[in-house]
Amino acid sequence: MSSTPALEVLIQTLRRLPGVGIKSAQRMAFHLLQHDRAGAVALSRALQEAASNVRHCERCHTFSEACMCATCLDHRRDPSKLCVVETPADQAALERTGAYRGLYFVLMGKLSPLDGIGPHDIGLKKLFDRALDGTVTEVILATNFTAEGEATAHVISEGLRARGLTITRLARGVPAGSELEYVDLGTIAHALVDRR
Amino acid sequence: MSSTPALEVLIQTLRRLPGVGIKSAQRMAFHLLQHDRAGAVALSRALQEAASNVRHCERCHTFSEACMCATCLDHRRDPSKLCVVETPADQAALERTGAYRGLYFVLMGKLSPLDGIGPHDIGLKKLFDRALDGTVTEVILATNFTAEGEATAHVISEGLRARGLTITRLARGVPAGSELEYVDLGTIAHALVDRR
Repeated sequence: MSSTPALEVLIQTLRRLPGVGIKSAQRMAFHLLQHDRAGAVALSRALQEAASNVRHCERCHTFSEACMCATCLDHRRDPSKLCVVETPADQAALERTGAYRGLYFVLMGKLSPLDGIGPHDIGLKKLFDRALDGTVTEVILATNFTAEGEATAHVISEGLRARGLTITRLARGVPAGSELEYVDLGTIAHALVDRR
Repeated sequence: MSSTPALEVLIQTLRRLPGVGIKSAQRMAFHLLQHDRAGAVALSRALQEAASNVRHCERCHTFSEACMCATCLDHRRDPSKLCVVETPADQAALERTGAYRGLYFVLMGKLSPLDGIGPHDIGLKKLFDRALDGTVTEVILATNFTAEGEATAHVISEGLRARGLTITRLARGVPAGSELEYVDLGTIAHALVDRR
């Protein structure tokens, strides 16, 4: 794009963002420098702030600026239920439903042997300690319904089996508002088996 | 994604990047904080550096850290030829061909009345002063072959008409390596008219 060293460094660093290739990085750098210098400065500051202030909640492992996140500190929540999700975004999706008032454990990832992500990387030891603290009576596995998410749920339920806890999984079935004709066969089969 | 203020600010600020929506911004923030904190710090620094150090070359208007860019300072280049391009990326594409040894003027945009971008915003006055400095004898219009690029080229050639300069436009024709069967009709028509 140019022989300006600062610009070159900016373009190369923007490529560290997921899903950003050389063309997108050039477009982003060009946009910020030509049309939105205030945005460049604001983004620089936001990155710095987040990198130095955001840590993990010591209880549920989600992002938090304090030792414990607001959800874990909320005394109106039911401490006997623990919902296990992969990411803070999944937790946010569950929260938006308003249908769950228990607590969470956020894995910050999923088991993925092909990418070298094992039980230690997603803090399973910490999850088991948390689930067996004596207060939790039900662990709800809300990992994604993908191959890795299912494997993660399986490993967790194996690890907690025969410890006196109820282990449940989010129900599989036909999505609300959908027509049977257009739903995939695996989903219909699950919905038939789990009919009520 | 979370109730962490620093994280919220980071996500909202990432959305100022072109082509980044809420989901991408969440994914980027999550990736940086979970897997690449060093990347977050490096990007913060690169943005700060670029925003404070990168200015415009006072001669050709491209990005430069010095008053004048390396290309404009290169005495082996032919100062009688001035090639007008829209962006530094376009300039880089021309440079990679190795087929041009003259100088450049980078508009840093194009005329686009619908977006409110007029002659003043792309520095046409500065371009005219530059082209009429007495050394330049040929102005090569290398704006893109889009509606806006063509309009920009037209306005520039009108502005410089009857000032004793040779005004040329990049040749239109069949791209190298292409088969006629798959080339669009407008391009073939232009290639026929400009045959040599």
